[in-house]
Amino acid sequence: MNMTGFVSLVGAGPGDPELLTLRAVQRLQAADLVLYDALVAREIVALAPHAQCFCVGKRAGARSISQTAIQRLMIRGARRGKRVVRLKCGDPFVLGRGGEEALAMCEAGVPCEVVPGVTSVVAAPALAGVPLTHRGLTSGFLVVSGHAEAVFGPILDMAAPHSVTIVVLMGLAARPQIAARLMARGWRPRTRAAVVLAAGTRDMRTWSGRLDELAAAPLDLSGRPPGTIVVGDVVGLRSLTTAAEPRGLTAPAAASGG
Amino acid sequence: MNMTGFVSLVGAGPGDPELLTLRAVQRLQAADLVLYDALVAREIVALAPHAQCFCVGKRAGARSISQTAIQRLMIRGARRGKRVVRLKCGDPFVLGRGGEEALAMCEAGVPCEVVPGVTSVVAAPALAGVPLTHRGLTSGFLVVSGHAEAVFGPILDMAAPHSVTIVVLMGLAARPQIAARLMARGWRPRTRAAVVLAAGTRDMRTWSGRLDELAAAPLDLSGRPPGTIVVGDVVGLRSLTTAAEPRGLTAPAAASGG
Repeated sequence: MNMTGFVSLVGAGPGDPELLTLRAVQRLQAADLVLYDALVAREIVALAPHAQCFCVGKRAGARSISQTAIQRLMIRGARRGKRVVRLKCGDPFVLGRGGEEALAMCEAGVPCEVVPGVTSVVAAPALAGVPLTHRGLTSGFLVVSGHAEAVFGPILDMAAPHSVTIVVLMGLAARPQIAARLMARGWRPRTRAAVVLAAGTRDMRTWSGRLDELAAAPLDLSGRPPGTIVVGDVVGLRSLTTAAEPRGLTAPAAASGG
Repeated sequence: MNMTGFVSLVGAGPGDPELLTLRAVQRLQAADLVLYDALVAREIVALAPHAQCFCVGKRAGARSISQTAIQRLMIRGARRGKRVVRLKCGDPFVLGRGGEEALAMCEAGVPCEVVPGVTSVVAAPALAGVPLTHRGLTSGFLVVSGHAEAVFGPILDMAAPHSVTIVVLMGLAARPQIAARLMARGWRPRTRAAVVLAAGTRDMRTWSGRLDELAAAPLDLSGRPPGTIVVGDVVGLRSLTTAAEPRGLTAPAAASGG
């Protein structure tokens, strides 16, 4: 019996339990304590049958436990010998404060690992039929948090029009500012744009249109879903790649026995 | 019995079979035909016990089957009623020509889905202890293919010094050009840089140092591993986050029963 506790920072992927990694499932099955983000699906948390499970965050506008308090819970659990899983949406090290949590564990002398996950940066566009790169269109993409214009503004200002695909997480509220900055930088108003809501869940829905329509796009924000904004010529491929109805979410009948 | 074939573009993740998604495993288990990239691990291909498996690519410098021929094999397999898995390193829609393959399936009228995977863009730095974003350092990252300077040069030229983290895939050979472009743009020579080789495999190894050392970094390229280059202040967190020996690759003993 190993009495040394251990913390796993685990990426839960974009939402669909089938997009968990095998290692994430193993860590959940073995966990004694699971501290999960508010957006993680119940079916995923339920994969930890032996664990105490606590929701520790964090949704836009809602009160929640502080980052420091979360880290304190992680450290305390590990020091009591628990296998602690900090279960985070998408990937723990992409715009999710996972770096801060890893640092805090190290400072406390708590052994800690990262289990990378499928990030919404990539999965949300993919499930909507949009490749982030495409030969002849672009060979790069720029990812930014849409939380505060003081942060994303200067970053978007760098992006020469149509040079890369733009991906913004946590930017639903800032759609007008995002569109305005890009158009001021010289991106054509008719540049293709998309918003993928609740990617990888049953409630996934996608709006696509033009950059100059992004600010006023009629999004269905019921249930306060997370959203991924994509801007760039690759969005135009969506109508082509979805022509044969790719099924990103549901299993194809022919393969459901697997 | 469903005689309509089906193509799944499946992300195999960065290398470690434990970083496959559950859906990827399901698709492999149900597959009749698997067309896999050369860098995909044997243990992953072996998860498709009923399938004919063919390696269709592509390693730097080696001869390989053409993109058109790969797509023809996918279409032919599906038209014969097979469940075809096109198994690609990392994520199918990140710098991997997955978009072209999805388009080709649609043009051929072949039903096609994308199964997102854990991309090396995120996982390689994470497994080396480097978060791509970190509060107070940067809230964004720029991803680019290092295949050709004519492509990555103008993209890197956009990136204001220390504004975002830079991630370059397929850029090992272009390290001198990458470092030169960034320093010419004003990035400090002492900016932290890292190269993660064979991320997510037993042979994973990481070099880290300064941007002005990147070109001549003494990398062990035996086995011709894939490499991920990361440049930015977040690389400096590595020494902190690895202080408590996070185990990115091997399972912690306490959790190995899961």
